[in-house]
Amino acid sequence: MTFVEKLQALRQLMLAQQVDAYIITAADPHISEYLPEHYKTIPFACGFTGSAGTLVITQDFAGLWTDSRYFTQAEAQLIGTGYELVKLKVPHTPEYISWLSEVLPRGAKVGFNHKLITVALAQEMQHNLAQHETVIIDVDFIGTIWHDRVGLPVENAFLIDEEAAGLSISAKISEVRKVLEINKADYHFISSLDDIAWLFNLRGKDVDYNPVTLSFALITPEEVKLFIDEQKLSQTDIRTLNQQGVTLHSYAEVAKTLKNLPEDIQIFIDPKRTCFGLFECLPKSAATIFGTNPSTHLKSLKNDTEINHIRKAMLHDGVALTRFFKWMEECLGKEKITERSAAEKLAAFRAEQKSFVGLSFNTIAGYNANGALPHYSVTAESNQEILGDGLFLVDSGGQYLYGTTDVTRVMPVGNCSATHADDYTLVLKGLIEGSKLVFPEGTKGYQIDSICRKPLWEHTINFGHGTGHGIGFFLNVHEGPQNISPANVDVAFKPGMVTSIEPGIYRPGKHGVRIENLVLCVPKGNSEFGNFLSFETLTLCFIDTAIINKTLLVSDQIVWLNQYNQMVFEKLQPMLTQEEAKWLKEKCEPI
Amino acid sequence: MTFVEKLQALRQLMLAQQVDAYIITAADPHISEYLPEHYKTIPFACGFTGSAGTLVITQDFAGLWTDSRYFTQAEAQLIGTGYELVKLKVPHTPEYISWLSEVLPRGAKVGFNHKLITVALAQEMQHNLAQHETVIIDVDFIGTIWHDRVGLPVENAFLIDEEAAGLSISAKISEVRKVLEINKADYHFISSLDDIAWLFNLRGKDVDYNPVTLSFALITPEEVKLFIDEQKLSQTDIRTLNQQGVTLHSYAEVAKTLKNLPEDIQIFIDPKRTCFGLFECLPKSAATIFGTNPSTHLKSLKNDTEINHIRKAMLHDGVALTRFFKWMEECLGKEKITERSAAEKLAAFRAEQKSFVGLSFNTIAGYNANGALPHYSVTAESNQEILGDGLFLVDSGGQYLYGTTDVTRVMPVGNCSATHADDYTLVLKGLIEGSKLVFPEGTKGYQIDSICRKPLWEHTINFGHGTGHGIGFFLNVHEGPQNISPANVDVAFKPGMVTSIEPGIYRPGKHGVRIENLVLCVPKGNSEFGNFLSFETLTLCFIDTAIINKTLLVSDQIVWLNQYNQMVFEKLQPMLTQEEAKWLKEKCEPI
Repeated sequence: MTFVEKLQALRQLMLAQQVDAYIITAADPHISEYLPEHYKTIPFACGFTGSAGTLVITQDFAGLWTDSRYFTQAEAQLIGTGYELVKLKVPHTPEYISWLSEVLPRGAKVGFNHKLITVALAQEMQHNLAQHETVIIDVDFIGTIWHDRVGLPVENAFLIDEEAAGLSISAKISEVRKVLEINKADYHFISSLDDIAWLFNLRGKDVDYNPVTLSFALITPEEVKLFIDEQKLSQTDIRTLNQQGVTLHSYAEVAKTLKNLPEDIQIFIDPKRTCFGLFECLPKSAATIFGTNPSTHLKSLKNDTEINHIRKAMLHDGVALTRFFKWMEECLGKEKITERSAAEKLAAFRAEQKSFVGLSFNTIAGYNANGALPHYSVTAESNQEILGDGLFLVDSGGQYLYGTTDVTRVMPVGNCSATHADDYTLVLKGLIEGSKLVFPEGTKGYQIDSICRKPLWEHTINFGHGTGHGIGFFLNVHEGPQNISPANVDVAFKPGMVTSIEPGIYRPGKHGVRIENLVLCVPKGNSEFGNFLSFETLTLCFIDTAIINKTLLVSDQIVWLNQYNQMVFEKLQPMLTQEEAKWLKEKCEPI
Repeated sequence: MTFVEKLQALRQLMLAQQVDAYIITAADPHISEYLPEHYKTIPFACGFTGSAGTLVITQDFAGLWTDSRYFTQAEAQLIGTGYELVKLKVPHTPEYISWLSEVLPRGAKVGFNHKLITVALAQEMQHNLAQHETVIIDVDFIGTIWHDRVGLPVENAFLIDEEAAGLSISAKISEVRKVLEINKADYHFISSLDDIAWLFNLRGKDVDYNPVTLSFALITPEEVKLFIDEQKLSQTDIRTLNQQGVTLHSYAEVAKTLKNLPEDIQIFIDPKRTCFGLFECLPKSAATIFGTNPSTHLKSLKNDTEINHIRKAMLHDGVALTRFFKWMEECLGKEKITERSAAEKLAAFRAEQKSFVGLSFNTIAGYNANGALPHYSVTAESNQEILGDGLFLVDSGGQYLYGTTDVTRVMPVGNCSATHADDYTLVLKGLIEGSKLVFPEGTKGYQIDSICRKPLWEHTINFGHGTGHGIGFFLNVHEGPQNISPANVDVAFKPGMVTSIEPGIYRPGKHGVRIENLVLCVPKGNSEFGNFLSFETLTLCFIDTAIINKTLLVSDQIVWLNQYNQMVFEKLQPMLTQEEAKWLKEKCEPI
């Protein structure tokens, strides 16, 4: 079936069931960042492969709403599909809702798969469309026309033991129960896979990059139910779960279980990480308490055991990165190296580390103009040879037993210009200002964000993405609740949080610079003015000093940089060959 | 009547009308910062004179809820009154609501004067108490027992002409109407006196410090009604108002007018600046659109005429401040100078300026330990002689025709310690970092706040108030919508906004430092990364360099300071005597 034929088929079904508009979202019932193949409905429907977008179909119009990152890609991929690109003004917002209220007649019927949309978004839609007496119904036309659809993933899952996790499953559950009690909830339903992974010390490989496994969890006053296909787990792991007070139920059983809950429960649910379809299964008389999943807060505060493991992962990652950049330097000009081959080589160096599990996201390796695309993903057409003069940006990370990494470095190639040097130095200044910041307890990410941007703002430069995101412990490379961004996310930084700091400068068509480290929030000490916190940098990869414009740095920034590179050398040296160590020592020479 | 007798009388009335709890708020029907005598109900009821507090009375308990600024004062003033101090955990929050829901039986009756509470707070109370079936009723027991209560103020009011305001009344009204149209509102009711003052180019003297006059305004599709006692206005001003399309109505008529509005209107109201009592007068079927008053946004963007007037007011204020600090320096040690006499002298120097109207707030003049109280107000008992060694903090401002000023300086007295010098220098660094900031369009105050605090944070120092507030044009010294504070106030800075920058360090029992300038937001220019803004400092008062610890400043901070003092000297010199100019020149010598 061509995309056009699929669109015709969907419109036939809409006509038959009197659905005026059909919405296709990029989601799964767990509201995951990375979707299993089974849920890649948008590529199936129209061929668009960007990570964010929504299709909206009426009898007169079919459109893909997506944000500026994907305008060029979408325009190319949508040719001849019957879909038009609709440019989002504000990324990640459902601007199609107001469009629908304009084009649809009063009392129209809007259909979408309620399992593939959050409670928060569905309620926003209900609220807005209710003013036009629009009716929302639950339909899965895609499911009807998708005949060769792959099934749900059934990869093996496994428990990580207490020595790796630092806390037993039952201890974590009782932490969650304490939060439920404060919120006067007796039940708690969890859909988000990383929350479940943390709570049950459970990992898997059902989706790319995120070591999670398809599952749901329900905490009741007496029980803790984990909905998962039992054949994914070893008998030992099943026994452990049972010993920790967890009962296992089949993945498919979750909707029925929710429907059969007692009428008068007080159930805690995260409206942004629970799908509307399962929310609708709850008894109508149940009182819902909306909030961020307690586990989201708890898992952001890494315990000492986790931190020690993360430090080890950083050593392994640092060794792989050192070998990669040494190889790059030695082979550039001698053999053909492309963005893709470089990324593959880096993955190979990581894979040599015995604790390596996989990549934590699709490597961004962009040379010059491609480096100016913050979310660049190399394709056969875009793949550039790294040749001549410019900047090569590599943003990459690994999953290790145990720890997740995410690091960006920029490698100067050939002769660099003054703009290359200045952009590189200003981004570095932003990273340093964030990394050496001291701040009072209670400080939010939005207060830290501007401090990282200030060195760029001084030169009327800015960048369009956040400065940093939380990161999991051998889990998702992006996790909440904290972040560093201009948005007013009302979450205070706390000791134990691991966050990236990654300012950037992007000159479209020319080059991009981003330098990224992961930092651990640590106590800095108390004074008569209260408790203060600071960051300890975890990432162990030298920062290239070759093209730094030293006149742009002030003395304490130079001190920070030299100390950082010195620390990288000292920590990695024991794990390197003599030749590698010699090479790295030179890279880490103070400026 | 003693306070105890008043409390007994109130409890009698509560019993008679079966009111279980009676709440007395510090407010007027305009939700003003400064209250007319008539509305000073809390001092009448219990003698507490702090600016923020709420009394809650039941048959078993009577308490004053207030914040940490007033704990000492409240404890002293409440002795023998029958009221106990209840310490607020979070300032400016109605923590008594949850207390009420704990102590009151289901179905209890809670009474308060609905005209003395905001719509927002009353609705919050309704929402929270509804869960306990609590009934809220409108009673004014204070009014019943207050026999010698003064009437409402009837001071003259006046229009400032278009040449001073830069925009006619009708032009301002049509700006407001545009915002109403966007919000799909056809009616708009305004209670806040500074919004009305701005909209009608109207000023008065009904309350201390704020040049406003008691009034309400109603915009309908056909009419603009101003509710004000007509005898306050000259015949010329009445004619001007009529010519600009404004009809006058008696102040007392407002409730009746609201009750008689058509049933099906869409009325725009600011829930934080409208009292619940008048909101309740609206037809039940009216659709209310809640939002910040459009005039609040519009008046924050000072036009060129206003800015020119403000610049002139700054010159006058700067001359008065120069004369004051010269006098202080020359007379200290020769004659007895106290905090109070210094404040009076400063007011006298301001009053010499022919455009002077009055003070813009009660001068904060605190020596050493008193300077460590950010909201210090001198009393007969607290009044310190300025003698020996230490720091004298003066935070003061004037109302001029036309312009409002607000400035804080710290004067070193005798021999200052290293801590004095370091605290002074760090606060100055904070001021400078804010003042010379370049930031992209869309930047919010919370992003600027942390940049001003960073130099203090580096030394594990912080302060408990916001870094800055908006300020009116010959209007209130505190106005919204923008501010510079850690709170996530989602208002972007725009060219034309005038805001204070006033970081501080307070060492209880020792000394306080705060340095404050007013800055104007101005365009900085465009780049490929967008439009950028910056600040231009408006305040013209030298910054004393005597105790600066220069090693704490970096070179661009020293450049800023020297340029600022040089500018102050150049602008003020033509208005000073030769002797004064000579003295100021020395104060402004570069460091």
